[in-house]
Amino acid sequence: MKTLSESRCYGGMQGVYSHASTATGGEMTFGLFLPAEAEEGPVPVLWYLSGLTCTHENAMVKAGAQRWAAEAGIALVFPDTSPRGEGVANDPAFDLGQGAGFYVNATQKPWAPHFRMWDYVTDELPRLLFNTFPLAEEAQSITGHSMGGHGALTVAMSFPGRFASVSAFAPICQPMASDWGRKQFRAYLGPDEQLWAAHDSTALMRRLGFDGPLLIDQGTADQFIDLLRPEALAGAMTERRQGGTFRMQKGYDHSYFFVSSFIEDHVSFHAAALMG
Amino acid sequence: MKTLSESRCYGGMQGVYSHASTATGGEMTFGLFLPAEAEEGPVPVLWYLSGLTCTHENAMVKAGAQRWAAEAGIALVFPDTSPRGEGVANDPAFDLGQGAGFYVNATQKPWAPHFRMWDYVTDELPRLLFNTFPLAEEAQSITGHSMGGHGALTVAMSFPGRFASVSAFAPICQPMASDWGRKQFRAYLGPDEQLWAAHDSTALMRRLGFDGPLLIDQGTADQFIDLLRPEALAGAMTERRQGGTFRMQKGYDHSYFFVSSFIEDHVSFHAAALMG
Repeated sequence: MKTLSESRCYGGMQGVYSHASTATGGEMTFGLFLPAEAEEGPVPVLWYLSGLTCTHENAMVKAGAQRWAAEAGIALVFPDTSPRGEGVANDPAFDLGQGAGFYVNATQKPWAPHFRMWDYVTDELPRLLFNTFPLAEEAQSITGHSMGGHGALTVAMSFPGRFASVSAFAPICQPMASDWGRKQFRAYLGPDEQLWAAHDSTALMRRLGFDGPLLIDQGTADQFIDLLRPEALAGAMTERRQGGTFRMQKGYDHSYFFVSSFIEDHVSFHAAALMG
Repeated sequence: MKTLSESRCYGGMQGVYSHASTATGGEMTFGLFLPAEAEEGPVPVLWYLSGLTCTHENAMVKAGAQRWAAEAGIALVFPDTSPRGEGVANDPAFDLGQGAGFYVNATQKPWAPHFRMWDYVTDELPRLLFNTFPLAEEAQSITGHSMGGHGALTVAMSFPGRFASVSAFAPICQPMASDWGRKQFRAYLGPDEQLWAAHDSTALMRRLGFDGPLLIDQGTADQFIDLLRPEALAGAMTERRQGGTFRMQKGYDHSYFFVSSFIEDHVSFHAAALMG
């Protein structure tokens, strides 16, 4: 593992690291914020999965989460959104290929060799983090924005018991029924839609749900709201009698100004679940 | 004036606007955060001047000031750091030309026609803002980072009575004695060092001082600390018996992680002076 930078931040440390990844077959970069409490021993962890076009950096510098994580004494992990670099397939569209991994393991050409972000964020990166840093594996929560909200919800529901709480900002709620999903699932997973359902929050909500606190924020002025389909997930929550808070935030769009406006609430929400 | 974007943010609005500038002879872009209170009437204004390589955008998306400005009910202005675009002179170095206006009016070729950032931030942009938005001209404060800290301090001292308070993050304190200053002042203002003193915070502190609250934060692990020369300004404050708070923040570097870690303090500091 290489240390790319470490900056003192709110009394803790914001680091950026890279490592050779087996899952994606290349070098991967991630951000990790450790609060001051990590100098004394393992601290709880909040995962933040990012959206289309983002790297490990966007949320780390724009979301403003460190202020509240420092106050709560919890760490923040910012993974990248896809494999990158020479020899990694790409597409001219912003919503396919590099920067658009969709948190799945691709099985189709040309994506299969590297686009294994599901294994990366659910297995390889956690093992690296818990072996390397003072992080409490038994105290994890997860959040994300847009494609990363899709990632957070699908990962949280797929690993019952791993996460104390889950939240999302403007998540892609039903990729199987959206142009933000069908195109990518077809490209990465192939034409069999049965295989897509494992990565669709609405389908997972109907089948599995989430046993813990759940919080979703969605801006009413989000320019992508018809692609995000919040009503599909809300409908599945209703059918399942899933507890949770689904907030429609009046006048907010899809930008980081929306995320940063409510990140305090989300970090506090997760801190309450993690600190129990 | 053109509206480039407006995003709901902490209950207020983060806008980005551009306009034809007489001072710089081209189109200029700025960010403006208005708190919810601006819907009711004019609100106080905190100017944020940015550092080398920055545009209007960096602090607007990275510094995290809006959270605290919203709480205090004050507006934030994020000007660009130089003229830009076709026909505007530039230099391959990151610290001269576009992105490096140093808040002076250039008199030398090739810079003189456009690089008039002093007039832009002290005259033209204020007039535009106070004519266009619900901002209280009698309630202004100013801050900035690095080159923008230099700008904030020199502007505040040069217009006695205009600003209720001044603060800076890791400002360039004595450009006349630093490679971050001598090179640029020679290029923009010519070889006569007498003319440089009007843009040197240490010289201005000796001559004018600031009649109001003053706050400076400087990281002890700042990679540029020898170029910033905080000891020169602190010495001038001592000589003058200038009141103020000069904080050396242990372990912090020059990045926005440093700025964001202390922006809450700075906004609160200015809010107290503005609301006082």
